[in-house]
Amino acid sequence: MPNALIPLADGVEEMEAVILIDVLRRAEWDVVSVGLREGPVTASRGVRLLPDKKWSEVNPDDFDWIILPGGAPGAQKLIADDRVAYALQRHARAGKRLAAVCAAPTVLHAAGVIGGRAITSHPSVAQRLGDARRSNERVVVDGPLVTSQGPGTCFDFALAIVAQEAGDEKARRLAEAMIWSYQPTANT
Amino acid sequence: MPNALIPLADGVEEMEAVILIDVLRRAEWDVVSVGLREGPVTASRGVRLLPDKKWSEVNPDDFDWIILPGGAPGAQKLIADDRVAYALQRHARAGKRLAAVCAAPTVLHAAGVIGGRAITSHPSVAQRLGDARRSNERVVVDGPLVTSQGPGTCFDFALAIVAQEAGDEKARRLAEAMIWSYQPTANT
Repeated sequence: MPNALIPLADGVEEMEAVILIDVLRRAEWDVVSVGLREGPVTASRGVRLLPDKKWSEVNPDDFDWIILPGGAPGAQKLIADDRVAYALQRHARAGKRLAAVCAAPTVLHAAGVIGGRAITSHPSVAQRLGDARRSNERVVVDGPLVTSQGPGTCFDFALAIVAQEAGDEKARRLAEAMIWSYQPTANT
Repeated sequence: MPNALIPLADGVEEMEAVILIDVLRRAEWDVVSVGLREGPVTASRGVRLLPDKKWSEVNPDDFDWIILPGGAPGAQKLIADDRVAYALQRHARAGKRLAAVCAAPTVLHAAGVIGGRAITSHPSVAQRLGDARRSNERVVVDGPLVTSQGPGTCFDFALAIVAQEAGDEKARRLAEAMIWSYQPTANT
């Protein structure tokens, strides 16, 4: 099964982080949440999460996907961390998959890994994406990039990521058990 | 603003717990997550959450709402804890609000606090609700009880709880910021 690295910084949107981790584990992915520093992460609405590992304990090159949950303050901390930018750049150069939701597409932009791909984001950060081609779809899949808009689009976002690896039928079965109606996302 | 007690046991469905805490805090509720024992809670898909307090540090009578996230193993632990049953019974006798999602309506049933009210639950636990009147709606509001079906109905569930206290317009504004489409839940 695929594996995914999910960096968690203080101020991460906790619904986005947890929906991604949970849905991908339901799909039997090997998901590793990683704190940028030692200890619990205090998310945007005060939920405290204990990451699986800290950044220094993983090699980002070992992962098929790097997936960034949003939350404006969390995204700022990801942008400020050179280790994250370097990992995203190595991943992009290797043609591997990157995904980001809500404010986190600004992290992809800051790392210079969007290229000419279409993306989406939370509408509130649209102005911080430079010349990126921003679509208003809930989820956008363009080549190696999968992006989405916010907490309320995270089930669709996580299931679109599942479907990229295992197809629509698997995503549909997972959705049903979660009482969710799966809508396939067309590749841009 | 209203306050809510959210008990967290090992095996709780982490998406349900976190969506409830986060959305109610966005609505400016005072939300206290409470572990049944000391230390971090390991949720159903391995996410580790640090509760705000432990059970012995709160008085459930001080809260307007007690809200139960699901997850089958977490719900079993809530059922097995007499302190939880006692708190639910005192709350029900006082006419205060109770809410539960997914497998957690079985906790309301085991505590004997459903009475003749209509409820819903995850379809997989429908047989464990005795003679309760189970509806197949995504969210059911009947008097003091609000119930719902699973992770994928938790945005609607949390927003229905917000709307009970602050009306549809507030729920609609919160939904918009989360990129969610709010649908009011009619009282049964």
